[in-house]
Amino acid sequence: MKAWEKNVRTVVPYVPGEQPNQPGMIKLNTNENPYPPAPGVASALREMDAEALRLYPDPAASDLTGALAERYGLEEDQVFVGVGSDDVLAMAFMTFFHSGRPILFPDITYSFYDVWADLLRIPYECQPLDENFNIVKENYKKYNGGVIFPNPNAPTGIAQDLTDIEYIIQQNQDVVVIVDEAYIDFGGESAVSLIDKYDNLLVVQTFSKSRSMAGMRIGFAMGNKSLIKYLNDVKYSFNSYTMDRTALVLGVEAVKDEAYFQETTEKIIQTREWTKRELKKLGFHFADSCANFLFVTHEKYLARDLFEALKQKRIYVRYFNKPRIDNFLRITIGTGQEMQALVDFLKAYTAQ
Amino acid sequence: MKAWEKNVRTVVPYVPGEQPNQPGMIKLNTNENPYPPAPGVASALREMDAEALRLYPDPAASDLTGALAERYGLEEDQVFVGVGSDDVLAMAFMTFFHSGRPILFPDITYSFYDVWADLLRIPYECQPLDENFNIVKENYKKYNGGVIFPNPNAPTGIAQDLTDIEYIIQQNQDVVVIVDEAYIDFGGESAVSLIDKYDNLLVVQTFSKSRSMAGMRIGFAMGNKSLIKYLNDVKYSFNSYTMDRTALVLGVEAVKDEAYFQETTEKIIQTREWTKRELKKLGFHFADSCANFLFVTHEKYLARDLFEALKQKRIYVRYFNKPRIDNFLRITIGTGQEMQALVDFLKAYTAQ
Repeated sequence: MKAWEKNVRTVVPYVPGEQPNQPGMIKLNTNENPYPPAPGVASALREMDAEALRLYPDPAASDLTGALAERYGLEEDQVFVGVGSDDVLAMAFMTFFHSGRPILFPDITYSFYDVWADLLRIPYECQPLDENFNIVKENYKKYNGGVIFPNPNAPTGIAQDLTDIEYIIQQNQDVVVIVDEAYIDFGGESAVSLIDKYDNLLVVQTFSKSRSMAGMRIGFAMGNKSLIKYLNDVKYSFNSYTMDRTALVLGVEAVKDEAYFQETTEKIIQTREWTKRELKKLGFHFADSCANFLFVTHEKYLARDLFEALKQKRIYVRYFNKPRIDNFLRITIGTGQEMQALVDFLKAYTAQ
Repeated sequence: MKAWEKNVRTVVPYVPGEQPNQPGMIKLNTNENPYPPAPGVASALREMDAEALRLYPDPAASDLTGALAERYGLEEDQVFVGVGSDDVLAMAFMTFFHSGRPILFPDITYSFYDVWADLLRIPYECQPLDENFNIVKENYKKYNGGVIFPNPNAPTGIAQDLTDIEYIIQQNQDVVVIVDEAYIDFGGESAVSLIDKYDNLLVVQTFSKSRSMAGMRIGFAMGNKSLIKYLNDVKYSFNSYTMDRTALVLGVEAVKDEAYFQETTEKIIQTREWTKRELKKLGFHFADSCANFLFVTHEKYLARDLFEALKQKRIYVRYFNKPRIDNFLRITIGTGQEMQALVDFLKAYTAQ
């Protein structure tokens, strides 16, 4: 070890999920949307003025926060945008989980929460899901420095009732409660409606799933004005210009086209429900997912073996080698055709 | 104050510089490049596949780090990219300035260093520039937890000799030394050549100035492999997917076109030298800037008054209301025509 290495912040490096790029592959491993972004995104891209890229973007990202505010019935200063919801959440951890007290989140959940907590030296205590992978709301009524959970939860896909969520917020008025709604548009009930009632509630969403823009890195948070101001103060002190000009322009186009958003989201929900029925017939078990993925286990076949067999056929799904969930696969809902191919393969595999 | 507000990380909010958007304005206030990005950027933008935006980008940003590595004669794993050099520098502060010992930087310098230090609770000690605004290299030979300075320095534009920079690195083998080269392509000598010799040296550059892409938010760091690995470990633990698909594609195009880069950079240098001669005739004083801006003061007129008078004519320059530099203006080098308009105005103003 060199002398300078003693002064380095070392972390257990987070390894991002595999991003395979095989011809003819069926990519169901990172919960991307199978449909392209709204048509307006493509036209805006073609019409963009390359010359303007020499100039800094609007640091306040007003066009985008304005479009989001309008869509969600909020004021512009109740919306914060960042480089994907990961950036928004990392900023929120840094801003709001600063008490030295442990923050609380489920033991089975989005795999980044403990990574951010470790990186930022925030103590945390994981709260176990029940045997059906539901969040136990009473677990969040204890000494803590903040609460965060996804709704629907990842990687289970299970949505929590809004009354349970409100219970958790009510019990935690002296800290910030973050509801991470990356998958909310596929069937859950958003906590956005509670923002006016609870000024300690931050709701985080993303363009990566229901808005088909994982490649553009846009996430956003909604909450009361002073919450958003604290977040902006930290963001401006970290990096004033996070959203590039293309993200700002294309993001607005994606928000504007409500009809396309509804149509593609509905298609994914329909395909999910079809896939549920087919997989059930083949002996798979899973919770009733409200997300754009299913979290499945089979009564006879090991998840690890299924994962490898699918991969051989260039069908990529996600396998987590973690306690309690190491016999599950997370399968993104693709197009009808893609899910048919998956089901066909699994039919043949389970008939062997 | 609400109960939850007690647990919030509060910072003195950094206020980003003004981004005026007036018809017919001459914008010389944020050191943007007056020329558009390389022609390949515009074509790549038109040819981009909007459909692919539904997929996550490459988290390793390999195409871009590869193009940069080739351009600078390095290996791909010696290059790190981020959302503008501010993102790169913030990650570097978080990663490398972790000892609890004070970091050192000049008292007059890029205004973000103390903001990051405050945000991340890193102690720091500012080292005074000499009376001619030069860095005093001996000041950096003392107990510290890291060193950072820009070369050329901002907002003075003064470039330090590479031998002085090497002296500072030599004296600080047990910490990381960051040379922030945002403006290096306009005349300074880069420390990239020292990377193989000193494994504690990180060189940071940006696409916002010499590559005409402030609007795309691309910055990068170069150093030895283990330094870059530490930086990536922290980055992956903060936000795995920082660079969106458009930034990755357009960034490569900007790096590839060396001829255009040389041509536009040379034009800016020529215009800067012309502007120096003209402003000298009008009684302005300034250090011999090696950047794409001049840092000027006048023997008779107050900077504040000049700033306001210019603004009236929609000529925007930068004024810093800070000790030691509150009678200076920072003027970005625009096109020949823009600088002619500035000089014409100042000629009339000083002839009154």
